[in-house]
Amino acid sequence: MRLAELSERSGVSTATIKYYLRAGLLAAGRQVNTTTAEYDEEHLRRLRLVRAMIQVGGLPVAKVREVMGHVDDESLGRTMRMGAALWALPHVPEPDEDDEYVRAAHREVGELLDKLGWGNAQALVTISPAHRSLVVAVAAFRRLGYDWTSERMLPYAELMHRAAVLDLDFVETQPSEAEKAEVAVIGAVLAEPMLQALRRLAQEEESARRYGFE
Amino acid sequence: MRLAELSERSGVSTATIKYYLRAGLLAAGRQVNTTTAEYDEEHLRRLRLVRAMIQVGGLPVAKVREVMGHVDDESLGRTMRMGAALWALPHVPEPDEDDEYVRAAHREVGELLDKLGWGNAQALVTISPAHRSLVVAVAAFRRLGYDWTSERMLPYAELMHRAAVLDLDFVETQPSEAEKAEVAVIGAVLAEPMLQALRRLAQEEESARRYGFE
Repeated sequence: MRLAELSERSGVSTATIKYYLRAGLLAAGRQVNTTTAEYDEEHLRRLRLVRAMIQVGGLPVAKVREVMGHVDDESLGRTMRMGAALWALPHVPEPDEDDEYVRAAHREVGELLDKLGWGNAQALVTISPAHRSLVVAVAAFRRLGYDWTSERMLPYAELMHRAAVLDLDFVETQPSEAEKAEVAVIGAVLAEPMLQALRRLAQEEESARRYGFE
Repeated sequence: MRLAELSERSGVSTATIKYYLRAGLLAAGRQVNTTTAEYDEEHLRRLRLVRAMIQVGGLPVAKVREVMGHVDDESLGRTMRMGAALWALPHVPEPDEDDEYVRAAHREVGELLDKLGWGNAQALVTISPAHRSLVVAVAAFRRLGYDWTSERMLPYAELMHRAAVLDLDFVETQPSEAEKAEVAVIGAVLAEPMLQALRRLAQEEESARRYGFE
């Protein structure tokens, strides 16, 4: 397809597509003559993904380029390819290890992983941004005076593990390794707002069931 | 306690506490003489909550004041008091109802609520920001070419309902209506990053179980 059709089908303006091409977020089309290039379905798919990361995920262009570099890196195995792309997404800053609440949070998160038997997640503790985000979130609860323990997190973690099984089952329906890595990124950018919305809607439903609409 | 102790116990500087007092985010202390005021445990609790909303939740001061106004509104019943505080949190903008993906998303979300039997959530459809956020998230998936149907959302929604039951069970452990409303807000601001972190950690664990660390 020509640039005009790519724009039409993606809903992205031709000027923005040209900008993405120059910024290296989209591979160049096949040049058919000096002024015209031809694009295919893979361009369209990639363009939609880039658009979602920028518009829905709010990522800067340099970050999108970094994430895409990992998605496209065929030298990596599946766990690392999906992980590297996710790890390039924005994360919370390093917690202050001298803070008493951070130390308590580390202890509770360690106990939680033991109780869950998540040996693989244990092995990633020092490098996983998700682990760091969890420690920061737990420390914030404890700083507010809530006794947020491994015991209290356990049922939430079990629910999230069931969600992760659904996530990976969906990833496995994708035909190629590149598409599997793409879907993992899309899941992080788009599924998190969806789960958040579902949880709030479920709270409204459950609250109205328990207390009515006074 | 004096201002200095309030600062010490909350980890918030005296200058920032004075700013929150002027901005109406914190009730004035009991004046013991012309230069000294006395603060109690409720000031400390409120100060920590305000701090979490601003620092962890990234909310502007005007928004925090609005949320707190609902938390403190004793004329509201419990569902409305928690709801009004949550609804004052930032939400996605209104979706474009002329967009074909938004219309399809509305249809799928409607079918989902039917399948779940969430009659109360159905009644809130036109006013709930969570419903709007869900439609926007589903439309974004469909725009990327993923056939994101009510069928596919159903198991996620059931998991989130179980999470909401845990959330409300925790809310019910709080002694007063004001504290119940506060905890609902804290849950929205702090528990969402925690669930997100748990889900990513669960994905890493599950991915390593299935594919190893290649």
